[in-house]
Amino acid sequence: MKIEKVNIEEKLTKVNDYWNPRVIGELNGQQVKVTKLKGEFVWHKHDSEDEMFFIIKGELEMQLRDGSINIKPGEFIIIPKGMEHRPVARDEVHLILFEPASTLNTGNVRNDFTKEKLERI
Amino acid sequence: MKIEKVNIEEKLTKVNDYWNPRVIGELNGQQVKVTKLKGEFVWHKHDSEDEMFFIIKGELEMQLRDGSINIKPGEFIIIPKGMEHRPVARDEVHLILFEPASTLNTGNVRNDFTKEKLERI
Repeated sequence: MKIEKVNIEEKLTKVNDYWNPRVIGELNGQQVKVTKLKGEFVWHKHDSEDEMFFIIKGELEMQLRDGSINIKPGEFIIIPKGMEHRPVARDEVHLILFEPASTLNTGNVRNDFTKEKLERI
Repeated sequence: MKIEKVNIEEKLTKVNDYWNPRVIGELNGQQVKVTKLKGEFVWHKHDSEDEMFFIIKGELEMQLRDGSINIKPGEFIIIPKGMEHRPVARDEVHLILFEPASTLNTGNVRNDFTKEKLERI
């Protein structure tokens, strides 16, 4: 098997929209994704999946029901399964997501933000 | 439940040795770890676990049986289960590991590098 390294910045140059995660790696049933965010997402939760947000660029405001946490480049947050959250990007944010392959971006909600099938780049 | 963000650089300031991964996050049965490397590790493989190396600082040479791959900051590599590999850090390397909680650092080998129990920082 031939394996290759992945360069995050290079992958991000292929992302030209917001709130549309692309898969850039897979291991142990989990997926590594990159996405760009801008604006306010929808309140949602994932009933069976913990979700990790690792910030590459910009500042992400993660709204939780009991407050909010600002996450900067070089920082990550893990949202445990069942916890309602709402990502807000006042300015453009680039990030890595780490979560099970089964994770739907809008969790228990389906709306215009929902991406049923993610592209691999 | 109160959750907190994690700052990678801040965690790395607590690491004062090499080849001794610390756990800094956990999700979906997987662990996020940080470690500093310098020198040559041992050839090994993980029979049931894929392993992700995400470089923060320095350049990691990942030796594989059919060649080697140099991985730089902002890049990652996923070593699939069963693939023999040997990390070599000519100069100091800082990195994030992402792998199942069950993963032993030296895989199928036990020697002076083996860490049976990892500290959480």
